[in-house]
Amino acid sequence: MTATLGTTPTTKTPDLGPAVELVSKEEGHRQPLAPEFVSAEDFSPLEVAYDFGRVRREDIEAGPKNIWRYKKLLPVPSNVEEIPNTEPGATRLVQADRLAKALGVKKIWVKDDTGNPTHSFKDRVVAVALAAAREFGFEVLACPSTGNLANAVAAAAARAGWRSVVLIPKTLERAKILTTAVYDGDLIAVDGNYDDVNRLATQLAAEQESWAFVNVNVRPYYSEGSKTLAFEVAEQLGWRLPPQIVVPIASGSQLTKVDKGFREFGQLGLVEETPYKVFGAQATGCSPVSAAFRAGHDVVQPVKPDTIARSLAIGNPADGPYVLDVVNRTGGAIEDVSDEEVVEGIRLLARTEGVFTETAGGVTVATAKKLLETGKLDPDAEIVLLITGDGLKTLDAIEDKVGPKATVSASADAVREALGI
Amino acid sequence: MTATLGTTPTTKTPDLGPAVELVSKEEGHRQPLAPEFVSAEDFSPLEVAYDFGRVRREDIEAGPKNIWRYKKLLPVPSNVEEIPNTEPGATRLVQADRLAKALGVKKIWVKDDTGNPTHSFKDRVVAVALAAAREFGFEVLACPSTGNLANAVAAAAARAGWRSVVLIPKTLERAKILTTAVYDGDLIAVDGNYDDVNRLATQLAAEQESWAFVNVNVRPYYSEGSKTLAFEVAEQLGWRLPPQIVVPIASGSQLTKVDKGFREFGQLGLVEETPYKVFGAQATGCSPVSAAFRAGHDVVQPVKPDTIARSLAIGNPADGPYVLDVVNRTGGAIEDVSDEEVVEGIRLLARTEGVFTETAGGVTVATAKKLLETGKLDPDAEIVLLITGDGLKTLDAIEDKVGPKATVSASADAVREALGI
Repeated sequence: MTATLGTTPTTKTPDLGPAVELVSKEEGHRQPLAPEFVSAEDFSPLEVAYDFGRVRREDIEAGPKNIWRYKKLLPVPSNVEEIPNTEPGATRLVQADRLAKALGVKKIWVKDDTGNPTHSFKDRVVAVALAAAREFGFEVLACPSTGNLANAVAAAAARAGWRSVVLIPKTLERAKILTTAVYDGDLIAVDGNYDDVNRLATQLAAEQESWAFVNVNVRPYYSEGSKTLAFEVAEQLGWRLPPQIVVPIASGSQLTKVDKGFREFGQLGLVEETPYKVFGAQATGCSPVSAAFRAGHDVVQPVKPDTIARSLAIGNPADGPYVLDVVNRTGGAIEDVSDEEVVEGIRLLARTEGVFTETAGGVTVATAKKLLETGKLDPDAEIVLLITGDGLKTLDAIEDKVGPKATVSASADAVREALGI
Repeated sequence: MTATLGTTPTTKTPDLGPAVELVSKEEGHRQPLAPEFVSAEDFSPLEVAYDFGRVRREDIEAGPKNIWRYKKLLPVPSNVEEIPNTEPGATRLVQADRLAKALGVKKIWVKDDTGNPTHSFKDRVVAVALAAAREFGFEVLACPSTGNLANAVAAAAARAGWRSVVLIPKTLERAKILTTAVYDGDLIAVDGNYDDVNRLATQLAAEQESWAFVNVNVRPYYSEGSKTLAFEVAEQLGWRLPPQIVVPIASGSQLTKVDKGFREFGQLGLVEETPYKVFGAQATGCSPVSAAFRAGHDVVQPVKPDTIARSLAIGNPADGPYVLDVVNRTGGAIEDVSDEEVVEGIRLLARTEGVFTETAGGVTVATAKKLLETGKLDPDAEIVLLITGDGLKTLDAIEDKVGPKATVSASADAVREALGI
């Protein structure tokens, strides 16, 4: 059946570095490391458990300038940097003084993840998923996606020499199709919406033994990649935790992993365990977690997404309840913003710091603004904003809002007149 | 006259670090550091001359992870990293084993400059231009451009809190207008072609005393930024020069500065002065330097550009003769490739290494292939390819060439059938 695409995963013991077991998030049931994502005991998501041993700052600082410098904190083999993969991470942490001034706060840092190989944080999680999938004997890297993830999976598979299978809704914008298709994997357009594509992926993950669907059957490993955002922020701040961080919420996984990353750094003594607050950002058109937070609920009611922030448009976020846990435990908050505010957020960040983010980043900036206005973010304590994707991928969001100041004839006088000088 | 946009540049002595004078390229006439670009003595381009003093590897390694680690080799103030600017550089040098195998060579490295803040090498030159322009008392950052430079200037000015004036032909594609306009500078569309816009910039540079046109009146400083590509390659290779490097040619400035960077590293004892060959890459539709090389000329005959590689489409390349000098002196060669080969080059790099480059990168890859086929590049000696811009900015080049493998109904059987499994 899988003659073309590969063979059954091998049964050799995987080398996943410090990872030792999977543990269920609800009741803590433990099971051996395997390409599984739901506990058969309590049906809750599985998460990687570790035996870290000793990890020192010097070991990390001596590592490569990418996420593999944190390999002793990830479910990846100990020689991961020698195996073909992408090398995401080590993106800029920008001291955003002009944005801080515009928002009336003391100090803001922008973690600009547009510098990754395919210009979003998805390169981080996909690289970890690929490394783990190889250890489990998979031979095909797959995903359902509407954008950033498709780019990252197709690119990583190309670099590793793997086949990729990327499933997209056939109605996807031409630009997003091109930026995945160029890597020459098996890009399949499906006659259906994203929910249909997602269901299809879950079914195929169960049936195709050699296919690693990064966000399905190897999800526990994949999602650990988001911890590297926290690790980098802490290291770039000079080995300390920021008192406040604002994180966009799609499935919610990233926010919970940023918290996990901060906690692990603290537990290992890599940073002082100073208090920090985690804040969540959603677009109002898809704000189930924000709505639950506002109502004081600990579960999340699914919604039908309707927002320009498509990379965050997950109506039934798998990690919603865990996001609420983290935000409540750390004393943070969650807020949501209109599509108009999202565009204003994109423009504010571009205008003040020269960083052009996709709609998700606009959500983060606009939410920070709102959290400041409502007194939930402290303007006197440092704030970190996670900017997780690139404006070049969502040009339609600003299409009708920006353009030339003037169109003039080719003379210096005409230019001066247009500028009023 | 300039009440709105600023005042006359100050006359304080600029701190441009190790830079001491300007020197004319033809006859070596020396003059004080100033915002000038052509020698009044011999009408040749002016270049920065330095007194480097001692520069050690340890000093560089202890510096920031961006181009400012090389500040002791650039015309920028000694505290440049403390002044608001972009922080380009420290981009990946990818060991491209799958590309090497596809081309039948021993070892290739891909310098992936798409990781810069606005995703092209222009961020390097603009950051240096901004730092120097500030020292000369300018207050407005300006340029004529059709794409990458416009993005870089508008973003850098935003980050620094400067006004920017970017002149573009009004026929420019909508996407390129958006990616500049979002930074909210003064973007002016001009009724004319790029040559008209360029002439207008030269005129305005002479008339507007507070405007630094990065590639006109502060060009000698701006162009030095390209040396950082050479510095990074050498440092990332473990402090040594690559035996062969392939560089795309637009004005030709970048190629001559890569050579200058290698020579400076050698002269300062930062690397051993091992021989290296510099190769030039052009699109056939704009190949005046390649044509001159082929004919054995030492001057370049202007052409009217007609190629999809628009970021290289300079028909009258200012540094053409100096490119010929470098290539001949180092024993390299220049070649040009058709637009079809350019697209194949883009696809080859994406398919083998997961790096999606703009048309200029396609020119570099395709030219390397041709130079190998004609025996000019040695397949047994290491090769470095400079990939200077991002595929997201030139999607039109691949629009009709790539797409989904199939469109299917939302069933697992349909997917399997489409994949032949």
